[in-house]
Amino acid sequence: MTIVPDRTLPTPGPTREEIFAAHEGGKLAIEPTAPLTNARDLAIAYTPGVAEVSRAIADDAALAARYTWTNRLVAVVSDGTAVLGLGDIGPRAALPVMEGKSALFKTFAGLNSIPIVLDTVDVDEIVETLVRLRPSFGAVNLEDVSAPRCFELERKLVEALDCPVMHDDQHGTAIVLLAALRGACAVQVRPLADLRVVISGAGAAGIACARILLAAGTRDVTVLDSRGILVPGRAGMTDEKARLADVTNPRGTSGGVAEALDGADVFVGLSSTSLPEELLTRMAPEAIVFALSNPDPEVHPDVAARHVAIVATGRSDFPNQINNVLAFPGVFRGALDAGAKRITESMKLAAADAILAVARDDLAVDRIVPSPFDPRVAPAVAAAVASAARSVPDGPDEQ
Amino acid sequence: MTIVPDRTLPTPGPTREEIFAAHEGGKLAIEPTAPLTNARDLAIAYTPGVAEVSRAIADDAALAARYTWTNRLVAVVSDGTAVLGLGDIGPRAALPVMEGKSALFKTFAGLNSIPIVLDTVDVDEIVETLVRLRPSFGAVNLEDVSAPRCFELERKLVEALDCPVMHDDQHGTAIVLLAALRGACAVQVRPLADLRVVISGAGAAGIACARILLAAGTRDVTVLDSRGILVPGRAGMTDEKARLADVTNPRGTSGGVAEALDGADVFVGLSSTSLPEELLTRMAPEAIVFALSNPDPEVHPDVAARHVAIVATGRSDFPNQINNVLAFPGVFRGALDAGAKRITESMKLAAADAILAVARDDLAVDRIVPSPFDPRVAPAVAAAVASAARSVPDGPDEQ
Repeated sequence: MTIVPDRTLPTPGPTREEIFAAHEGGKLAIEPTAPLTNARDLAIAYTPGVAEVSRAIADDAALAARYTWTNRLVAVVSDGTAVLGLGDIGPRAALPVMEGKSALFKTFAGLNSIPIVLDTVDVDEIVETLVRLRPSFGAVNLEDVSAPRCFELERKLVEALDCPVMHDDQHGTAIVLLAALRGACAVQVRPLADLRVVISGAGAAGIACARILLAAGTRDVTVLDSRGILVPGRAGMTDEKARLADVTNPRGTSGGVAEALDGADVFVGLSSTSLPEELLTRMAPEAIVFALSNPDPEVHPDVAARHVAIVATGRSDFPNQINNVLAFPGVFRGALDAGAKRITESMKLAAADAILAVARDDLAVDRIVPSPFDPRVAPAVAAAVASAARSVPDGPDEQ
Repeated sequence: MTIVPDRTLPTPGPTREEIFAAHEGGKLAIEPTAPLTNARDLAIAYTPGVAEVSRAIADDAALAARYTWTNRLVAVVSDGTAVLGLGDIGPRAALPVMEGKSALFKTFAGLNSIPIVLDTVDVDEIVETLVRLRPSFGAVNLEDVSAPRCFELERKLVEALDCPVMHDDQHGTAIVLLAALRGACAVQVRPLADLRVVISGAGAAGIACARILLAAGTRDVTVLDSRGILVPGRAGMTDEKARLADVTNPRGTSGGVAEALDGADVFVGLSSTSLPEELLTRMAPEAIVFALSNPDPEVHPDVAARHVAIVATGRSDFPNQINNVLAFPGVFRGALDAGAKRITESMKLAAADAILAVARDDLAVDRIVPSPFDPRVAPAVAAAVASAARSVPDGPDEQ
């Protein structure tokens, strides 16, 4: 299979001048939902009328969900420690990304969203700050927080806040990966459970992808970090890696990516480490390669396509784009629609199923996931997530 | 003079049903400033294009002012301890007021604004929280924080943050009061400096009003709290009241409002304490009464008008409405336009002058300030404040 770049997409991409011009003054605006043009408007929206609403909420705090914007408001929170491929560039430099994320929340799910970038990298200080801010928003999308801090931060926030919290770099990626892999399996008419999957990268996304594949029934998942395959007792592993080593690599393979790929069905690249072409020849027939690092995939999709059956990337200029925007808008919309206090594993699995369901009638080797701009996706994900949330209301995360 | 309620305003006011319906879902929305409808839009506003902007800010933090929304973004911050006339109703119940304030910032000054309501009343925790949030906004409008905590909080925030900070209940009120009193003086053709002014109420607004009148040259200001006139050494005074006692009440009057009003030219009511009609007869000829408590003025304007020459209230259904919206939108707009790090006393005085200048050609006993909806006000205030800021750039507050 030769993958031809989709020529309906712009080539070349936007210029540096276009990009900077589009960011002048930022990418978000606050607008009143009703005009304030005369004394009567002011008497309704501000004094004295607003006092009635404030008094009602003071008497019954639950009314804040109805009479303020918080019930539809996602805080996009970052400390700027792991921004795109740029690393620890700090909160100010992270802000354009968070503004973009907020714009996506509105565009794809109709949710209001405010970027919150924090001038601290201390996990407990971030938790404390968001606990104090809690009455200001309805959900938290954690973004671009470095591993392994992101695991501790998300866990502590979930414990501390009575609202949906999700680190999108982990779970958004994992949800879309699962949807894409189910799509590939559907095209190839084989079960997900039987796949031998290799994940290169044991950061936020890699660990979450391994976890969701295990939760979805995949039995043979092998994960690598920069030192090689995660094996119980190996040196240089964080707690998260050690825990993952205990439930992955069932055949006890040791070594590096070459050993891991021997006979593997799926390669998932989440490490920005380039994959030599010759290693692809070690994979099983009809193999699947998801080279997800951006902007440079671990292996060029045209190169991968010489050796494997299905190729996906994170890029918009090739088919099979695995993009978080397929997941996070609908996940948060569904959680908020259902009044959920948590985003549980069953809600994430339901989101992946819903993404796949949108694509199911049109699946092909170059269409294993819907387009990020398919307008059916976010509502379908939201409905599935809300339904999953309502079936186990306010329960603990069963992960 | 008999003051006839302005029948162009709605009578009766909005119903409870109208008010609650207008607050459903909150009063604010976030909108992207450009559409995100295709892959090219996404490549500009989000990955991969946004990485160029983030990298540029990482190299030069000053570029955040240009390429994010923060330079036009006011955080409206409250802990909900002194909301309208409702008192300490907490952050959730305060949120509808803060949403309204944010809506006013956009409507009157074109500034974006996010409500931040905090689940702590500890001054140092609030300061710490806003220091951590600092990269997320460009200015802080403190709102509805109880006295005397509000003085300490504002002082500590001004020290801790390199951006404009203003407690509107103090300084917004003071600016508009000064503009109105200058307007009254202009109508009566007498100097502000010669007035004997009595301020009833030594909370946030009362103290700030006294301070700005002194800064503007008024020599004889007497302030009362619930125990009577502030006199050096008197029992039951906070630090702020004690400091104010040292620079007010130059004739050493002691007692209550009756003693204070003997021969006074101006009564400013900021205490929600009703003023008996007979006390108005103690005032000097051509007296001025600003009965600013809302929704119930200290004395009904029709009653006051039997005894004094000029009456103002905070209400929209009587002439001479002294409303903070005349000040805060333009003050913050001007400070941000000028890139000011502080809101100084000279910027506040300039704002008051600008408000008055808009009304000057049309002054009358029932038009001592412009209408809150006069579209000339906010731009005039912003220009004056920016000019004042630029004339003493980044200097310490000279108060």
